[in-house]
Amino acid sequence: MTADPVAATPSDAPHPPGAPPYPRVTLRAGQSKRLRRGHPWVYSNEVEMTPEAKALPPGSVVTVRDAGDEALATALFNPHSLIALRVLDMHPDAPVTLNLIAGRLRRALALRDRLVDGPFSRLVHAEADGLPGLVIDRFGDHCVVQANSAGMDRLLPVVLAALDAVIGPAGVVIRDDTGGRVLEGLPAEGLRVHGTAPDGPVPVRQNGVTYRADLTGGQKTGWFYDQRDNHALVARLSRGQTVLDVFSHAGGFGLACAAAGASRVLCVDSAAPALALAAQGATESGLADRVETRQGDAFATLAALAKEGARFGVVVCDPPSFVKSRKDLATGAKGYRKMARLAAPLVEPGGLLFAASCSHNMPADRFLSEIVHGLSQAGRNGRVLARTGAAPDHPLHPALPESDYLKGVLLALD
Amino acid sequence: MTADPVAATPSDAPHPPGAPPYPRVTLRAGQSKRLRRGHPWVYSNEVEMTPEAKALPPGSVVTVRDAGDEALATALFNPHSLIALRVLDMHPDAPVTLNLIAGRLRRALALRDRLVDGPFSRLVHAEADGLPGLVIDRFGDHCVVQANSAGMDRLLPVVLAALDAVIGPAGVVIRDDTGGRVLEGLPAEGLRVHGTAPDGPVPVRQNGVTYRADLTGGQKTGWFYDQRDNHALVARLSRGQTVLDVFSHAGGFGLACAAAGASRVLCVDSAAPALALAAQGATESGLADRVETRQGDAFATLAALAKEGARFGVVVCDPPSFVKSRKDLATGAKGYRKMARLAAPLVEPGGLLFAASCSHNMPADRFLSEIVHGLSQAGRNGRVLARTGAAPDHPLHPALPESDYLKGVLLALD
Repeated sequence: MTADPVAATPSDAPHPPGAPPYPRVTLRAGQSKRLRRGHPWVYSNEVEMTPEAKALPPGSVVTVRDAGDEALATALFNPHSLIALRVLDMHPDAPVTLNLIAGRLRRALALRDRLVDGPFSRLVHAEADGLPGLVIDRFGDHCVVQANSAGMDRLLPVVLAALDAVIGPAGVVIRDDTGGRVLEGLPAEGLRVHGTAPDGPVPVRQNGVTYRADLTGGQKTGWFYDQRDNHALVARLSRGQTVLDVFSHAGGFGLACAAAGASRVLCVDSAAPALALAAQGATESGLADRVETRQGDAFATLAALAKEGARFGVVVCDPPSFVKSRKDLATGAKGYRKMARLAAPLVEPGGLLFAASCSHNMPADRFLSEIVHGLSQAGRNGRVLARTGAAPDHPLHPALPESDYLKGVLLALD
Repeated sequence: MTADPVAATPSDAPHPPGAPPYPRVTLRAGQSKRLRRGHPWVYSNEVEMTPEAKALPPGSVVTVRDAGDEALATALFNPHSLIALRVLDMHPDAPVTLNLIAGRLRRALALRDRLVDGPFSRLVHAEADGLPGLVIDRFGDHCVVQANSAGMDRLLPVVLAALDAVIGPAGVVIRDDTGGRVLEGLPAEGLRVHGTAPDGPVPVRQNGVTYRADLTGGQKTGWFYDQRDNHALVARLSRGQTVLDVFSHAGGFGLACAAAGASRVLCVDSAAPALALAAQGATESGLADRVETRQGDAFATLAALAKEGARFGVVVCDPPSFVKSRKDLATGAKGYRKMARLAAPLVEPGGLLFAASCSHNMPADRFLSEIVHGLSQAGRNGRVLARTGAAPDHPLHPALPESDYLKGVLLALD
């Protein structure tokens, strides 16, 4: 355990957002059971929305009380969000200081040090790491932070100070461009840098590859650490194979396959900047002779490749979310089916297809059945070798199994 | 592709169980849709159980026809089983010869050669490998075969000849002691050996360990290949840790952890023969100085260890099925909860718990919630790092997602 970060950096420590006693927010009668059982959220219709409560600034630290006035927990309150309360600590008057945040970061870091070799991982995965709405990805000397709840947005100065104290990054990129922030009534554009900005795309070392990630212009935090173990799974089965990586982004799957001995890899993406990163990563990893890129719409390129008679031993389809909200489920499901139908003719007999969905609103069983349906529309059968999720540095809060957003299916086709 | 096995071994080839035209079995009106979509089963209430059909010997090869007399598929028929028809081929007059079975075996073998290093894996996983009800595990020069459908029981001579032709094992142990056979009205006791019987426990090489498996006296086929990747997952996180492996059987998890650098491993099982195999494997793998065994009831031993103040960095609980039939669900769920409650105090702060259920009747979400519930009864919280299934040499037939029986959950506790 390192020294107390408050003591270590007294001059850097910002004022805490308020010490107990905190304003109180009271639950409606009969609405405390889920929270008592360890669920980290209370919905707005479960809260007594008194004028006093409504007047609290979004993101305030509050003490949660039940209808009988029993103090239950310390939470972050947002009167304008469907998720009105996010539990920060089961002590009702927990001091929300740099010390508390640094403690959570240290616990999160100890876990990642055990899970992942080197400073390349998701360091904080929100509720599951006891920091509701906060996401931190680590890229060597840099971090990317997303504050996706009003409470974490308000606590951000404390978070940054705690991050400085616990790992001392050269720079932190704060991405304010997330959809989660919109639901919390937070501004959702632009980015800021705390400390030194990264000097162009940063290296990401994993699975024997040095990738390049754009922390300031790329999608999400700039990298998808959640697919690390899926990259490894597919790569292990790609030795001597030809590989097609569709929706390749910066080459996550493709370069891992090349490093594991794939004979030839084609990365397809609609975004030229992402393919440039893939090419840079391939060159820097000594894989350029086996990795090609092709810019184009994924579905159109799948169809074009089939027309060209292309066949691959391994095909990967890892698209962005097709189901952004629950009402898009039917449309998104059709999208996954079509993706499988178009990919099917490109898989050699006996070859592998890995398909992923990062759509929170797409149930795992439905995703598998749409993929299988699409394959059968193309006259292909097979068997499911694995159903996977996000890598373990993206842990799941046990009371939020529905937050298990990433689904992967690996099939061997006849 | 090797030479045609029929041609290669003409004198060994048994007579096929009947060449087309086969007896016909007709589906009731409106019952052909699922089969047409690729589902491999037809239930008894979907079949016209005419006197002719009922009179067919269980396991007969038949042609399935719809109510309009359209020929749909070649299947194995058992008038006495809930699963009346198991599709063998979508051609309605597929010749069920050594050639057909050998072709399925070759395809299964090609997949395993890609998935697993060396001849230690599940070679055939029933429906998913196009051989309904047939299980074959491979242990170097030996195989273990389970024929869990009347059709496969009847085809067994052809299966053995095909196995001889495709991989030529020194000996095949035929285990007739499975519960699946009872549902098919087959005798379920004893074992037979085709070829040379194994000379005592055989070596099983995986994850850097040489285990020992008892093919003639152990549980199931003698080894649980389905946990191979879960062994590897837990082992990777056990370097420098103390490990408790409860329901250890022959040391699957424990020895893998020791080989990966665990400082000390305790294997607990109620069966002395299983622990003797674990000890033999530890000795032969050079791990004996770090692996201890303790015979006893798992729950009693968990309680005793807690009383002794024992703590481990990693605790594994991989019990036999607690839910043998659907009516046992509530009782079994309680069992898993109790297991987690008893294991919780043995996990160090920050330590890991891996729990598994091989109960087909226990849904994955319910299993996770019971484990979390048990932990919370013991005052422990944590986060879910991974939800896993069976290793990919146990593929899933896409139309039978419910046959995904093995569930693992890995948690990091506070």
